[in-house]
Amino acid sequence: MNHTEFSPAEQEILQRILMARRDVRGNRFRADPIAESDLHTILQAAAWAPSVGFSQPWEFVLITDSATRAQVAASFAAENARAQHLFADEKQRHYQQLKLEGIREAPLNIAVFYRPSAQPVLGQTSMVEPGEYSVVCAVQNMWLMARALNIGIGWVSILDPSTVKAALNAPAENKLVAYLCVGYVNEFLEQPELETLGWETRRTLASVVWPERFPDTKA
Amino acid sequence: MNHTEFSPAEQEILQRILMARRDVRGNRFRADPIAESDLHTILQAAAWAPSVGFSQPWEFVLITDSATRAQVAASFAAENARAQHLFADEKQRHYQQLKLEGIREAPLNIAVFYRPSAQPVLGQTSMVEPGEYSVVCAVQNMWLMARALNIGIGWVSILDPSTVKAALNAPAENKLVAYLCVGYVNEFLEQPELETLGWETRRTLASVVWPERFPDTKA
Repeated sequence: MNHTEFSPAEQEILQRILMARRDVRGNRFRADPIAESDLHTILQAAAWAPSVGFSQPWEFVLITDSATRAQVAASFAAENARAQHLFADEKQRHYQQLKLEGIREAPLNIAVFYRPSAQPVLGQTSMVEPGEYSVVCAVQNMWLMARALNIGIGWVSILDPSTVKAALNAPAENKLVAYLCVGYVNEFLEQPELETLGWETRRTLASVVWPERFPDTKA
Repeated sequence: MNHTEFSPAEQEILQRILMARRDVRGNRFRADPIAESDLHTILQAAAWAPSVGFSQPWEFVLITDSATRAQVAASFAAENARAQHLFADEKQRHYQQLKLEGIREAPLNIAVFYRPSAQPVLGQTSMVEPGEYSVVCAVQNMWLMARALNIGIGWVSILDPSTVKAALNAPAENKLVAYLCVGYVNEFLEQPELETLGWETRRTLASVVWPERFPDTKA
């Protein structure tokens, strides 16, 4: 399966998947459960992610239980109520109208954890973050594989990680990296919703790419 | 370009790209420079990554200058000399034989930074990490797009970030997320090298996936 050469047609398919991936919220999910074979394909994609020192430091909890989801949704509600006050005036009114999660609407939630190694990890001896970053690479693989399967994923980060950990009986040393809502969808939006709504504008490549070093005006 | 439905044939192409992606080190890179069009395609893939609150908090420094690379390579050498002593006996001897970077062999290095926002970011009000995690998603998009273009990337994390930041004149608030070596390659290995060499074994999905919650024996 490890073809050495990919063709321009295959490159374009990857580009279309990268561009078509969206963060999906509760107003787009359908309720029908994820097929076992699709779920396996998504988790397999996670396992193919790069990991520092081949440490594969990821763990996944598959959540359908409604009591667990109610606990997570309550954490979202509390954190979100607090968050809106950080935005001023018009932005705050705009924030309050946004649907930012699909914890109960999606048929499946997946909590993704980083599990630190008890032993030194090759490549993680100077910077500690690459362990967590490996788990994020796994999440991005899942997100892209799901999109190719026409399945939506929404990443909920407006949560108290300690509440989520307690609800899932997580080991103390595990760190919550991502909480994902997963389901088939009514539609994928053409653009990120926050772009369409004018919450933020898209940056040009020229504004974020520097040749050789940062210019003195940035330092 | 945002096709709603991808086909099984397109899904399989993504799977092949995910599986064929490798961390490439200096003994595999060719010296010929990356074509401008390929570099643009890779950076464009980064810009399509998800980001918390559509914050797009990434910056990229494209490095070919040999003096800069010598500074980064010196940081790797110092950190790597220190790191090997963390591994005992046979593992230490094994570590010393590994080629772990391609800073000077690859024709291009890309330093990828997280630039924190001065304003509150939607979705980053409870957990601070999703900003950095967005940048990691961009790196994984680059890695996959590069692989589809038959270009290798190696992620070097055995570095002192403050040395790299100083060499690149980086703003104090920026955080180094990834240092990438980028180039065409002689070959992509069939398996991760650390798997082939027996440094670590591949985990089964069953060992990292939990239904509903962690079992009591893990807590």
